[in-house]
Parts: sequence; C-alpha cells; structure tokens
Amino acid sequence: MKLYDFGPAANAQRVRVFLAEKGLEVPTEQLNVREDAQFAEPFTSMNPFHCVPFLALDDGTVIAESMSICRYLEELHPEPVLFGRTAEERAVIDMWMRRFELDGFIPLLHAMRNHVPTFAGRVVPGTRTDLPQLPAMVTRGKEMMEIFLGRIEAHMARNEFVAGPAFSVADITGFFTLRLATALQMDIGVIAPAVAAWFARVSARPAFQL
Amino acid sequence: MKLYDFGPAANAQRVRVFLAEKGLEVPTEQLNVREDAQFAEPFTSMNPFHCVPFLALDDGTVIAESMSICRYLEELHPEPVLFGRTAEERAVIDMWMRRFELDGFIPLLHAMRNHVPTFAGRVVPGTRTDLPQLPAMVTRGKEMMEIFLGRIEAHMARNEFVAGPAFSVADITGFFTLRLATALQMDIGVIAPAVAAWFARVSARPAFQL
Repeated sequence: MKLYDFGPAANAQRVRVFLAEKGLEVPTEQLNVREDAQFAEPFTSMNPFHCVPFLALDDGTVIAESMSICRYLEELHPEPVLFGRTAEERAVIDMWMRRFELDGFIPLLHAMRNHVPTFAGRVVPGTRTDLPQLPAMVTRGKEMMEIFLGRIEAHMARNEFVAGPAFSVADITGFFTLRLATALQMDIGVIAPAVAAWFARVSARPAFQL
Repeated sequence: MKLYDFGPAANAQRVRVFLAEKGLEVPTEQLNVREDAQFAEPFTSMNPFHCVPFLALDDGTVIAESMSICRYLEELHPEPVLFGRTAEERAVIDMWMRRFELDGFIPLLHAMRNHVPTFAGRVVPGTRTDLPQLPAMVTRGKEMMEIFLGRIEAHMARNEFVAGPAFSVADITGFFTLRLATALQMDIGVIAPAVAAWFARVSARPAFQL
C-alpha cells in the first residue's frame, strides 16, 4: 500500500497522528496539493475528489477520507485500540468523533477556507473554482464552534479524554478541531476552560508534535 | 434499549430506513422536537446535543448520531450486512458514506435550515438561538452539492449502488442527500442523470417508503 500525503494539510495530519499513535509506518508519497499535483494523472483518476490523504492498496483500490483510512488500518493492526474494544465503546467513540467533526471541525474548515487568502479559488476542498470566499461562512463556523464548546465543556470537565477514560481516535479529531479554532483566534481558555485543559494534555503527546 | 425518534426528522429517518433494510424492530419513543420535547428532562441530560435520534441502552449509555447508532446495531445484528464484509469493503463503504455526508448531506442540511421558515431560530441543529438564517449558507450548500454531483456522475453511471455492486449504508445517506437536493429545487436529472437514475432505483425499495 501507499499513502498519498501533504505535510501541511489538516486531514493528512490526522492520519499521520493516528499512525504515530499506533506505531505504524506506511510507505508515503508527498503530493503538493498547493501546486495542484492532485489534478495530474495518475492522481486525478485515483481520487477524483482531489484531496489528500488517500491510500492506494496493492489491488488498485483507493481509500480516501482520513477516517476511513484510519478505520482500515485499525482493522489490519488492532493494537493499540483507538476505535474501541466493544460494540458499545466503538459506538460511543464514533459518536464523539462525529460530534467534533460535524459541529466543530467541518464548520471551522469551511470558515478557514472562506477566510485565509491561501484558499481563495479553493474554497471547496479539492476544487479550483471561481466561487468567492463568503464571510458568512466564517461567522457561522465560529458561531457553531462556540455552541459546540458550550455543549462539551461539562463533559470534558468530567473526562480525561473525549470519549471517556481512554485515548481514542475521537481525541485526534478533537485536537484538529481545537487547532482550527485557535488559528481562527477563538479564545478557548475563556470560552471553555476544561476543553482548553484537555487540548493542552493531548497536544503534549509525542504523536501530536507535528 | 430504546430509540428516541421523531417522524419528520431526516436523521431519525436514516435510522428507520436502516432498521427496515435490516428487518429489525427496536422499541421506539417519539420526541416532538418541533415542540422542544428534547429540551425537557430526562431527555436534555440524556442527549445534551438535543437532537434526535438517540439510542438509550439498558446500562444507561446513550448513543446519539444516526450513523453511530446504525454501526452499533450492525454489530449486534450483522445480517444483512450493510457496512461491508471485509476490512476493504468497510473502508470503501465508509469513504462513500462520508463523501455523501460531508460534501452533500451536511451542506444541504445547513442550506435547508437557513432557508425554510420552520427552522428560523433553529438554524443550528438542536439549538434554540437567535442566530439569523444566512442566505449565503443556502447558496454555498447548493454550489457544493453541484460540485459533488459532477464528481460522482461517472461513478454512478458505472455502479448499481453507491459503494459498488451491493446495497449498503452509503446508499441510505445518499438517498437523504438527494432528497434534500430535490427539496431545494435542484434538478438532478439535468445535472447528473446517472445519479438521478440511481436515486429512482433506491427510492423504489420497500424500506424507503417513508
């Protein structure tokens, strides 16, 4: 198998942190998506969604989507377990991963793409379009994140990690959500101190030294 | 276990279609989220995200998030398999489920919530807020869906179902994505005829008669 990666891309970094937590190494090739390498062949046929990361298997199957790649690698290399040991643990971890992703990470990713000059002409991931950057997407993304922080603060005050007592893949998505929030100048320590404390704990782990 | 459901809610319907495809019955209680039942106890403590559906297990654990509920029920009742039989199948199905969800379903869900009068004061799922409905969220949601349809048209012309030859949970997410697009007056038959043909096939299945 081979992993197609790009150093600065947040979703590619999610997979790299996962690999580091698992102690796995996968043959990797860098695709410079800022220079549009993903639009050239064979990459555009391998992943018509033009995003990194994606994982090409030896039989030609391509698995895109960071979390789908992580799920696949967890099945091949179960230990250390990051998606849960029982059906119930797996469901709870998946729920928290989705909450962070849908209510925080994705709205903030769109906020960032509609805000930072680097992403002008690339507001939709994997596209080169003339769609304008919309300030409303930035406003709404931050508003959604603030609501989300209010909802999880009490939970994070009671739990060492996102899905409970054990570190899981939900903490990885959580970390990247909080990193986007701080990049967008949201003051997490003021809005949600328990979330900020958890973020500091996770950020100190060796696998998160990006 | 008990499933908390609300008839007209799209995410609750995703779980109901899944149950029908699996041939499963789960004890169910209706929570009228349009009348704010989810903000009263014990429901607000059970799910502080104030959304349906959620599944309460006998040990008190609550699993929210439609796809996390479906994953859990698939583990308890594997047949018929809707999340894939092998690690590779599961990864490909998960990838397609995520593509539909992140590039279509979620942007269109926000488009709908920022467009329809019913959702004024509820633009963020599970909230009662004074955040305004933003027309830009409607525009961008439809633009993202149009890009997504362009990306999947060739794939859908070659495949009977979203993730290949077999019906899967990705078709369920796909169906609700297309249903939102048609509700927002997007003319799928013109933009992406192969996608429209697949949508008609899936819509005819007994489990999808909502």
